[in-house]
Amino acid sequence: MVRKDTDAPPTIHHSPFTISIVLVAPQMGENIGAAARAMANFGLSDLRIVAPRDGWPNPAADAMAAHGLPIVQNAQLFPTVEAAIADRQHVAATSARPRDMIKPAFSVKEWLNNQLPITNHQLPATAILFGRENSGLTNDELALADCILHIPVQEAHPSINLGHAVAIMCYELSAISGLPSASNPQETLATKAEIQHFFTHLETELEQRNFFLVKDKKQKMLQNIRAIFSRSQLTGQEIRTLRGIITTLTKR
Amino acid sequence: MVRKDTDAPPTIHHSPFTISIVLVAPQMGENIGAAARAMANFGLSDLRIVAPRDGWPNPAADAMAAHGLPIVQNAQLFPTVEAAIADRQHVAATSARPRDMIKPAFSVKEWLNNQLPITNHQLPATAILFGRENSGLTNDELALADCILHIPVQEAHPSINLGHAVAIMCYELSAISGLPSASNPQETLATKAEIQHFFTHLETELEQRNFFLVKDKKQKMLQNIRAIFSRSQLTGQEIRTLRGIITTLTKR
Repeated sequence: MVRKDTDAPPTIHHSPFTISIVLVAPQMGENIGAAARAMANFGLSDLRIVAPRDGWPNPAADAMAAHGLPIVQNAQLFPTVEAAIADRQHVAATSARPRDMIKPAFSVKEWLNNQLPITNHQLPATAILFGRENSGLTNDELALADCILHIPVQEAHPSINLGHAVAIMCYELSAISGLPSASNPQETLATKAEIQHFFTHLETELEQRNFFLVKDKKQKMLQNIRAIFSRSQLTGQEIRTLRGIITTLTKR
Repeated sequence: MVRKDTDAPPTIHHSPFTISIVLVAPQMGENIGAAARAMANFGLSDLRIVAPRDGWPNPAADAMAAHGLPIVQNAQLFPTVEAAIADRQHVAATSARPRDMIKPAFSVKEWLNNQLPITNHQLPATAILFGRENSGLTNDELALADCILHIPVQEAHPSINLGHAVAIMCYELSAISGLPSASNPQETLATKAEIQHFFTHLETELEQRNFFLVKDKKQKMLQNIRAIFSRSQLTGQEIRTLRGIITTLTKR
């Protein structure tokens, strides 16, 4: 069998930053600047922006950033959420609304105290996703996260200003943002890019062997397969092991 | 001795709201609206505004309030901080900067967990003061509070956007904002108006008896006297007792 692109080890860019704030398709430059200002207040600095509505750079963001201006100026731009979280090991998506999907949901305090996988006082490379001002994150974007975070609000008034949501999150994160990144790659969680490449590898092989007989059910079956492996917090080493298994199983 | 104005029992307006957000001389209408929006998110509704720079009402506040618009429309306007907190029993002032004054200072979490006087699951009528965007609260305004609250920030970037500060505070307050107000006046803390009237009563009597011999030291002596009584969390009944003592001591 010809060696495919998906067999190549993914290029991993390990960011020096432990926690990334990811704004997905933000509409108002003012909110991007406000997010950067709050990040500076609470010691975060890795801002990532996915497909901002009004393009980039945006003078409105600069004007609102105050002392967070260097964070705006150093923000990284990405075309997709997948690209923005490729080097991350743990991804939490903020959402105000309950969703009919199997994805664990926690309050920020529950997540910080019990769910964020901190090992030996070391943090995984983490991203927090924030959605569009008017409509939040899509279901496909939520599916990329390990869990959903919600800021507990009044049922009658659940819509939090984007800048406020980032400020509250950074305020809570400041308790842990000083922790070092996990350093031993043998024991650390796989990055989202490694996991994505594993899925692509597996799905390509299954596709070629006509695993998805009923075309209508393919998407649902893929979701279910991804859910199996997403729940188990795989390390980079385990992903490499799984890919070795697939390669071995598919040898003629 | 002629019965003076200061002997008259102060008129107390007990607000149905347990926790009041007090914006002192806010400069930007946008920030007033943003504060109201955050209050609505987290179940607070009593907004009080002291001497807003751009007058009142302010269309910029309405525009930013979103679902918090009724809170803006029902906001109470006051000429001074003293008037805004007259019916309050416990007042906390937010400040980013350390001050050279004898006033206990706590982080928001410390204050909520250990310092806010909650008796029998009942809250005192509480106010949180927020200062001007560019310069915060004056020392005279801070002196009116029972304690100083700070939101822990990076030393290099301590200046939090006013809307963000209110949002973070309301987020933390939402854990307790549903608690009922203390109801038994015999056991409840004195209001700031009751305490102010007691001070005025005492100081007037001292003044008339030439207690303040050295004019230069009068302000400092008054501050020290106020500090003595401010530390002891007096109930309304205790204030009435103290005023009775003064009246008795000053009878000819």
